[in-house]
Formats: sequence, structure tokens, C-alpha cells
Amino acid sequence: MAIRGAMGLPVVGMVGGGQLSRMTHQASIALGLSLKVLADAAHDSAALVANGVTVGEHTSLEDLRAFARGCEVVTFDHEHVPGGLLEALEAEGLRIYPGSAALRHAQDKLVMRERLAALGIPVPPFTPVATVRDIEGFAHHVGWPLVLKAATGGYDGKGVWVVGDAAEAAEVVASGVRLVAEQLVPLQRELAAVVARSPYGQGAAWPVVETVQSDGICVEVVAPAPNLSEERALEAQGMALRLAEELDVVGVLAVELFEVASDSGGSSLLVNELAMRPHNSAHWTIEGARTSQFEQHLRAVLDYPLGDTSLTAPWVVMANLLGGDDGDADLDRRLHMLFAKDPALKVHLYGKQVKPGRKIGHLTALGDDLEAVRRRAQVGAHYLRTGLWLQG
Amino acid sequence: MAIRGAMGLPVVGMVGGGQLSRMTHQASIALGLSLKVLADAAHDSAALVANGVTVGEHTSLEDLRAFARGCEVVTFDHEHVPGGLLEALEAEGLRIYPGSAALRHAQDKLVMRERLAALGIPVPPFTPVATVRDIEGFAHHVGWPLVLKAATGGYDGKGVWVVGDAAEAAEVVASGVRLVAEQLVPLQRELAAVVARSPYGQGAAWPVVETVQSDGICVEVVAPAPNLSEERALEAQGMALRLAEELDVVGVLAVELFEVASDSGGSSLLVNELAMRPHNSAHWTIEGARTSQFEQHLRAVLDYPLGDTSLTAPWVVMANLLGGDDGDADLDRRLHMLFAKDPALKVHLYGKQVKPGRKIGHLTALGDDLEAVRRRAQVGAHYLRTGLWLQG
Repeated sequence: MAIRGAMGLPVVGMVGGGQLSRMTHQASIALGLSLKVLADAAHDSAALVANGVTVGEHTSLEDLRAFARGCEVVTFDHEHVPGGLLEALEAEGLRIYPGSAALRHAQDKLVMRERLAALGIPVPPFTPVATVRDIEGFAHHVGWPLVLKAATGGYDGKGVWVVGDAAEAAEVVASGVRLVAEQLVPLQRELAAVVARSPYGQGAAWPVVETVQSDGICVEVVAPAPNLSEERALEAQGMALRLAEELDVVGVLAVELFEVASDSGGSSLLVNELAMRPHNSAHWTIEGARTSQFEQHLRAVLDYPLGDTSLTAPWVVMANLLGGDDGDADLDRRLHMLFAKDPALKVHLYGKQVKPGRKIGHLTALGDDLEAVRRRAQVGAHYLRTGLWLQG
Repeated sequence: MAIRGAMGLPVVGMVGGGQLSRMTHQASIALGLSLKVLADAAHDSAALVANGVTVGEHTSLEDLRAFARGCEVVTFDHEHVPGGLLEALEAEGLRIYPGSAALRHAQDKLVMRERLAALGIPVPPFTPVATVRDIEGFAHHVGWPLVLKAATGGYDGKGVWVVGDAAEAAEVVASGVRLVAEQLVPLQRELAAVVARSPYGQGAAWPVVETVQSDGICVEVVAPAPNLSEERALEAQGMALRLAEELDVVGVLAVELFEVASDSGGSSLLVNELAMRPHNSAHWTIEGARTSQFEQHLRAVLDYPLGDTSLTAPWVVMANLLGGDDGDADLDRRLHMLFAKDPALKVHLYGKQVKPGRKIGHLTALGDDLEAVRRRAQVGAHYLRTGLWLQG
């Protein structure tokens, strides 16, 4: 159903009012659109900056239906809309991208792992577990420590536990969440292959990146991943494009990868997680690629031909800005200092209340020298967080 | 007076809801802000995409005051706010950038020319004229044809007349507008030097560009201006930075220049017009420079240190998208075709009703080969306007 706004262009809605929605709105403006946002609250990150904001519940069929009926296509800032509700909307003929069948693989880690294993895509050894006995049985094969993950609802390290023995496992089991157990693989580093796919079936990949985590939260992304052979990069991109096709993803698909030592002395790739929306590992594309992931996501869900994914500089580094302990620090003053120190650093702030450890923005640096670029991003993020300049 | 919004960051207001305000809002999002807009109507270009929109009259002191009181600083999308109203707001302690004393030079061509002449900045020979006899007297010195310009209120070729004799001049005089007469200079081409200046006095210049006009409307901008010697480019940038300082401009200052043949066989520069706001001649900076004019304008009015103005590619070409004669053409369909043809072209649409000749968007191409880049921008703009592909 064609639902058109200004200039006769389609109306796009996004469920969720977080920073992904905020940055998608920013990109939508260039395309002649104004993103419609279904937000939890009027002070949500995207709700502060978009014109067409509805406050409602993403778990309410009624709210979702009313929102979706005003949009030509609806897409998502997060994976938290129950699949049953999406199926109901789809049955009513409303256009939802990615669709419920695809999205299930980003909502349920067990479904995803089973599907990927069936496709022959390498994943860490895993099994569904319900009891400590199940976990002990799995440990018999993969050893302790091992990883327990909530099958649904985890993010940013939440819902992931590394357990060293049966007693620790018992505590997690006691929490009552549905669990998947995984081998704790000896990873060398984490990578991400981010692609987009349109309903027509066109795919486009950005360069594979290295992601650096701290306490389960991504703190830094380096594009392209340093010291990654062209062969391995093509393998990762190919795997992501194939997954987008097999799972019928529409929009951005981020494939989080583990690079692990292989028996042959080289390395191999395992898929860790999937996200079917713009993803933190591709925020660098705003300045670092000719087409940002936010524009690309819109192009994909509108079935426009996809944009050029070339890099705009040899090296691009994104550093997440995490809230510091001094939540009432004068951020405006710190911005003055930071801009004076590094006029080329690009700052993105999400309008969020500052809480310790919360992602409240990100910084992007780019240039010819990887170590210099990386240092600039780190120095900037550390300064905005703490008010202190990293030395050395 | 500190008026703060999300994250304790300043609230910035822009008077006028046109595309400059729309693109400034887009840039404001990254800085953690949400531009407040005083628009003429709810369907104005910026009013469609910004969250904080007030519909009001930019000629009403009451509307301006109420708007400005909710902002830490107020700036402009156009020059049409009467100077007397700005002075009244300033007298009340409200922060207005650029200030009324600076803005006068962008509002009144006679004031601007007299001030520039007094500063020794080269301008075409000019004189205020009120009668046909005045014009004939001026023609005695500079010859026919000559140029008559409305001292205030002109834009995009409106308010400018080239008159070949006294009879034609009489028609313009009969219109009753206050006029400035100028020599019709033998221009080789038009250039623009765009800079920004902060209240602290920091200045930053983008590379000088060539602007191509058709029927008085800018249709294309090439950055940097081809075949411009470094000496001449530095002269133009220096002139613009000096003007920003002398006139106490805060924000973006665009200096439109004529390059004319000089007696020595070379060329020299004359200042044609000034604009004290983001300007069409710098739309290319969104993708073509590390800091866009919209971000820079915000940094300047907030007295943040200014951003890096480096080019992101050797050549950047912007083509304005003008409304075609088929105002109800399916723009969405044309976008599909255009994106398929040129995945690297960047499109900016303003959400405006399509009218023949109206600026409804712009396209930006960039790359290593000037003629190829220029062609891509032209082909794209022509196709979106007409539905036809330029051949050859």
C-alpha cells in the first residue's frame, strides 16, 4: 500500500526511539523523508529530534497496528517486538522489514544457531540447556569454563555469563531464563561483517571491521579490520551476504564474528551474533563510507538500489562514548575543549541522560595512519567521559 | 543566558523553515541538539523534519521574542527579519547571531557596497539611484547596458535587472523599489569564498568554489574552483575572512565574487554579494568537506572551536535540483532509476512542493576526475527534473 508524504515519497516508520532511530532520521532527511518513530517515551533519543513521533508500546498490537497503518513500510531500532505481533501485522498486509521470519533469527539465539548450523555456517559448538545436568553434560565435551547465554533479550553483555563450574552454572539456571550453552572459544579477536539487502535481492557489503569489546560492550571499531587477508575478508562478506539471502533479511544485517586460531596455524571465522538493523559496528560509515548504514537501511527497506559502500579514507576508527561517573559534568564545556584539540574529530551525541557505562554517543576519526587515527578517537572518547586527557 | 536542553547542551533556534534550516537541523542532531525552528508554516521544509517547530511570523516582534526566549542563541535561515526587530531583541539581552549590525550588510546592498568600498574591498562601480536621470548620469560613466538591483529583498535573480537604455530603466524605476545601479562588469566567471567565524574571533575557510548560474539561479558549484591560482584563492579567502572580522559576522559568511579580466591581461576579483548564513554555494560541504557548512554554522554560533574544512575528495560538484514542468511526476520512481545508474551520487531533497524552477533539492558527486564528476551531477539533476537521461 503506497502511503506517501512530502514530494510524493514513501512514509517510513521505525519502531523504537533509540539512537539508531535518531541517526536513521538524520539520514532520512536527505532522502526527502521524515522518519516516523514509535517511541517508548517523548524523551527517547530519536523522539527528541524527529517530527513524527508516536509514544506507544512496542509490545501492544494495537499501538503497532495504528503506527504501521500510517507507514508504507515499518522497520526497527531493536529486536524486542514479539514475533507473534509481527506475524499478525503481516497477515493484515502491512509491510514490515525485516519480516518476522527473518527477524526471528536475531531475536532467538537458539533458533539462529540451529539455522546457521543447518546452513553449514560455522558457529561455536552450542546446545540448548535447561538444567545444571544438561550443562555438565555439555561441559564434558567442551570443558569449563563455558558460556551461557539467554536465548532472548540479551544485549551489550547482558544475558551472557561465563561460568567456571556447576555451582556457577546453577546460579544462572536459577534465574529461570531459557539458555543456550556455548563453548568458550579461544578467540583472537572479534570482527563484524555488515551488509544490506533489498527485497529485490540486491546486496551490498561494507569492508569487514574489527570490533573491540570491554566488559561485553563494544568500545571501538576499526575499519577496515587491520591485518585481515583479502581472502578472509571476502569470506566474511560472502557469509554475511549469503545469510542475508538465506534468511530473507531486508535492511542492514550485522554479523558479529569470532576470529579463532585454526588447527592449521592460521585462523578461521565463527558467527557469534546477528543483528537485523543498523548496528554499532557500522556507525563509522556515517563519515567513513560513501553511504552510511542509516541511509542504506532506508534504501533497502524502500527497495531503492543500494548505495556505494566505499571507504572515504584509508582508516576509520569509531569510539563509543560511554557515560562517566560524573553524570552532571558540563558536556558543553568538554566539547569546547575537545573541538579545540582535534578539529577533525566527528562527534555524535544521542541526547540521552548520562549514566555510568551507558552508550551516550560516539566519535569518529579518519585518516592515513591507523595508530594516529585510533589514538585520536580514544583520546576524544576518554576526555568526554572523564574530563582527562590520555597521556603518552 | 544559558538555556539548555538534552545532555545539558545549548538550545539553538533558527528563524525560517527553509532547506537551510532543514539541513542545519540534520547537522544539529550529531551535536546532541535538536534545532528549534520558527517557521512560516507547518509544511515548511524544516518544519517537516524537526521536533521543535513554532509557526509564527518572522516580522512580528512578539513571535520573535517568544521564540528567542526559549533559545540560548538564535540564528537565521534567511535575511528577512527587519533590523529594527533584531535590535529590539538584542537590547533585551537575547543572543542573536549574526547580530543586527552585521546582518545589515546582507540585508541592504547599498549599505554593503558603501561599507566594502570604505574598507578598500573591490566592488563593481555602483551608485544609489532614485530617478531615470540618476541612472542616465551613471550610464554616462559606465555605459549601457548596466545593472539595477533592488537594495533589499532580492534573491535568486529576483530584484536584479539588466537595462539597455533609459526607457528600460524607467520601467524598473516605476516599480518603486529602492535601487542601486552597478556597472555590468565583463565577468569571466563567478566564484564564492565561504568562511565561518565564531564570537571569539576564530575563522575557518573552505576552498574557494566556482558557481555556475543560469537565469540568475545557481545551478552548479565546483569545489575547488578549477584553474584558480593558489594566490588568487588565498586572496579570496583572505578577503572573506577579513570581511567576517570587519563586519563582526558570527556564523557562516558566503562572499559571492566576480572574476573579471584585468587590464594587465590577468584577472581580478570583485565582491558581488554577501550572505550571512549557510549558503547554496557550500551545500557540497555535506559530503565534500570534513565539516559541513551546517555543522560549522552551529559550531560558530555556539562559539565552539571550528571544524576541519579539508576536502574529502579532489573534486566535488553540487548540482541544484530545480522543479520540472511535470510537478506530479513520480519522484520515487525516478529515485529508483537514478540510484541504479549511479550508486555513489548523494541526493538531498527538501520536502518542498515541486514548482517549475524552484530549488527542491541538490545532488553531490565527488571523485578524482573533474569532468566525470561534473557529468554525474549534471546527468542526475537533469534526470530527476525531466525523467530524461542526458546523452553524450
